[in-house]
Amino acid sequence: MRKVAIIGVGMTKFGEHWESGFRDLVIEAGARALEDANLHGDEIHAGYVGTMASGRLVGQEHIGALIADYMGLNPIPITRVEGACASGSLALRQGFIAVASGIHDIVVVGGVEKMTDISGDEISDVLGGAGDQEWELFLGATFPGLYALMAKRHMMEYGTTEEMLASVAVKNHKNGAKNKYAQYQNEITINTVLKSKVVADPLKVFDCAPVTDGAAAVVLAPLDIAKKYTQKPIEILASAQASDTIALHSRESLSKLKATEIAARKAYEMARLTPKDIDVAEVHDCFTIAEIMAIEDLGFFRKGEGGKASLEGKTGLEYAGGKGNGGIPINTSGGLKACGHPVGATGIKQAVEIAWQLRGEAEGRQVKDANIGLSHNVGGSGATAVVHIYKKGY
Amino acid sequence: MRKVAIIGVGMTKFGEHWESGFRDLVIEAGARALEDANLHGDEIHAGYVGTMASGRLVGQEHIGALIADYMGLNPIPITRVEGACASGSLALRQGFIAVASGIHDIVVVGGVEKMTDISGDEISDVLGGAGDQEWELFLGATFPGLYALMAKRHMMEYGTTEEMLASVAVKNHKNGAKNKYAQYQNEITINTVLKSKVVADPLKVFDCAPVTDGAAAVVLAPLDIAKKYTQKPIEILASAQASDTIALHSRESLSKLKATEIAARKAYEMARLTPKDIDVAEVHDCFTIAEIMAIEDLGFFRKGEGGKASLEGKTGLEYAGGKGNGGIPINTSGGLKACGHPVGATGIKQAVEIAWQLRGEAEGRQVKDANIGLSHNVGGSGATAVVHIYKKGY
Repeated sequence: MRKVAIIGVGMTKFGEHWESGFRDLVIEAGARALEDANLHGDEIHAGYVGTMASGRLVGQEHIGALIADYMGLNPIPITRVEGACASGSLALRQGFIAVASGIHDIVVVGGVEKMTDISGDEISDVLGGAGDQEWELFLGATFPGLYALMAKRHMMEYGTTEEMLASVAVKNHKNGAKNKYAQYQNEITINTVLKSKVVADPLKVFDCAPVTDGAAAVVLAPLDIAKKYTQKPIEILASAQASDTIALHSRESLSKLKATEIAARKAYEMARLTPKDIDVAEVHDCFTIAEIMAIEDLGFFRKGEGGKASLEGKTGLEYAGGKGNGGIPINTSGGLKACGHPVGATGIKQAVEIAWQLRGEAEGRQVKDANIGLSHNVGGSGATAVVHIYKKGY
Repeated sequence: MRKVAIIGVGMTKFGEHWESGFRDLVIEAGARALEDANLHGDEIHAGYVGTMASGRLVGQEHIGALIADYMGLNPIPITRVEGACASGSLALRQGFIAVASGIHDIVVVGGVEKMTDISGDEISDVLGGAGDQEWELFLGATFPGLYALMAKRHMMEYGTTEEMLASVAVKNHKNGAKNKYAQYQNEITINTVLKSKVVADPLKVFDCAPVTDGAAAVVLAPLDIAKKYTQKPIEILASAQASDTIALHSRESLSKLKATEIAARKAYEMARLTPKDIDVAEVHDCFTIAEIMAIEDLGFFRKGEGGKASLEGKTGLEYAGGKGNGGIPINTSGGLKACGHPVGATGIKQAVEIAWQLRGEAEGRQVKDANIGLSHNVGGSGATAVVHIYKKGY
């Protein structure tokens, strides 16, 4: 397999894009990534795009062809990949494999979701398609409900508190306030979260990622020619994916995501690294409890200690460059909570943020001496998990 | 890139499966492919699945994880790929790339669609998602309508007649009658087609592929270890994909599919073969005109002569083994027309049929001395085309 690098990145602002359609978002993100890689469209050999539910959200399937068309990239092959909220990272993984295989050299990978064109009631139903339709959603479960079960179990087993959960949202809003692409750029307090409306006990509105429109894109190339396009290639050291049961009731534990553990183990093996080597990570915080489980399952904190670490600020930006001090900056972009969660775009946005961090271009939220980064993207309630590890390629 | 072989194949009967759900179909096809490859589930390293519109047809996205779960394959990664009616072949292509890259050895690739759980009106709308929602479907176009425009243009430019179109359906029903997996196993006459109800002039009911439930699966392995699993590995010599504008009105010609031409050219180059080397082909006949365009665009007949060749029987089984006599057996499975068209499954079913032909296991429809086969799968009205070329690997 050839080594693979990210040679360009770009994204739209995440938020409610009433003035832009699905295709406008893709074009904006894709054009920025191509510009960042100093590439013309005719130098692209193939593409992948992650989107979860375009069929139900905007009545459009066949997204690969749509994008090839509207980005003026015909006749190159562009393929849509779907794995619920992990669709973006799955697309990145296919792009990685394609470049590694040698079948394509320059590959653009995008993620997109246009979520605000349908009503809030409908969106719940659409997102429900990420879980087990027959055994969970049809019987009345919602996504906040599923994660609330996990939160309750985590609280029971490890003494995690609602304050600890809230501290994740507070930290992510603090980071989001430093990210001009974030949906929410305002800081909040623990009280903002605790006093917000309950969605599914113990999760309140401010424990939940919002509904968001947005797109993000990266351009991949074999590492050995990456320097032709950029002074700052970012090498993808590892790409790993794992599955778990789609319904919660079949899992052996509700207080961890086994797919995250397995994908992380495979990724660390592939990269020949350990959790201690990671300087900065974007993890999947669709709900605050999800970030707490993620930082444990990824090996940054011992199982059960993620909530306490969050409350103590060990995942904040102040832990930048502090290897060995027991902390690691998590979700510098603001995470799904504050940066927003346009489902299919999230995995690619994570890669974009890590690339910016490793290139030293993360502005007010820059992690000092960031050399190695990790992204972690989850599909549904944990039936798919994808982990990528990146390193400065210069 | 490593050489890749098909080491096992399986499919469900295509038809109206009132007694089976989406997951039952996948399991049946997958289990048959695994059995055919003499494999246990724990020997599988990864999977891909093609399905077009499960979100709208059965309310379920996140199909990769669902299948990993219900086939008992957790925690291996399974990824859904979507490209409208070409979803199956796109999944096959990703599986091919994954094995070729070296990241995975044994990969199962499935295709599935459960279409009969919603009404006929709804199905038209769902299938419309394969075209340009904003510029075609929203304005009232349907898929038969789009292909009717292509048929009219082909008739005008080349003198193709309604009888020629009908002859495609007659031949495909004749083949389907010899395939126990086909939805329609009855022969028809030219008159059956000509006298059937008009759907979109000049296309009648019998010019159109039906609505179908079904699934198909293949197992891939590196060619150099394929013999461990099967005495009859089928090598995939080429996998190529191309895109065209999603809407018809932007195309330079309505009487051909440019994406087919480009994908075919790339596939022949990759395989170092020409159309004359192909012994048997499965092509995308969602409508009879589509088969006529396909056999021209793939280079089996000169442009404009596909209709005449069909009427003269040059695509029938009797042309088996007759290299150099100007004919080639097309759609021995019965094609989309008679075998049925469960959208995401079709591309994989084509690979299954070609594997059976090259293994000499196609029973009453066996093509004599078939050594090299081709499959051709189209997404929507031609915005995606995928061509695979296969050869006996033993």
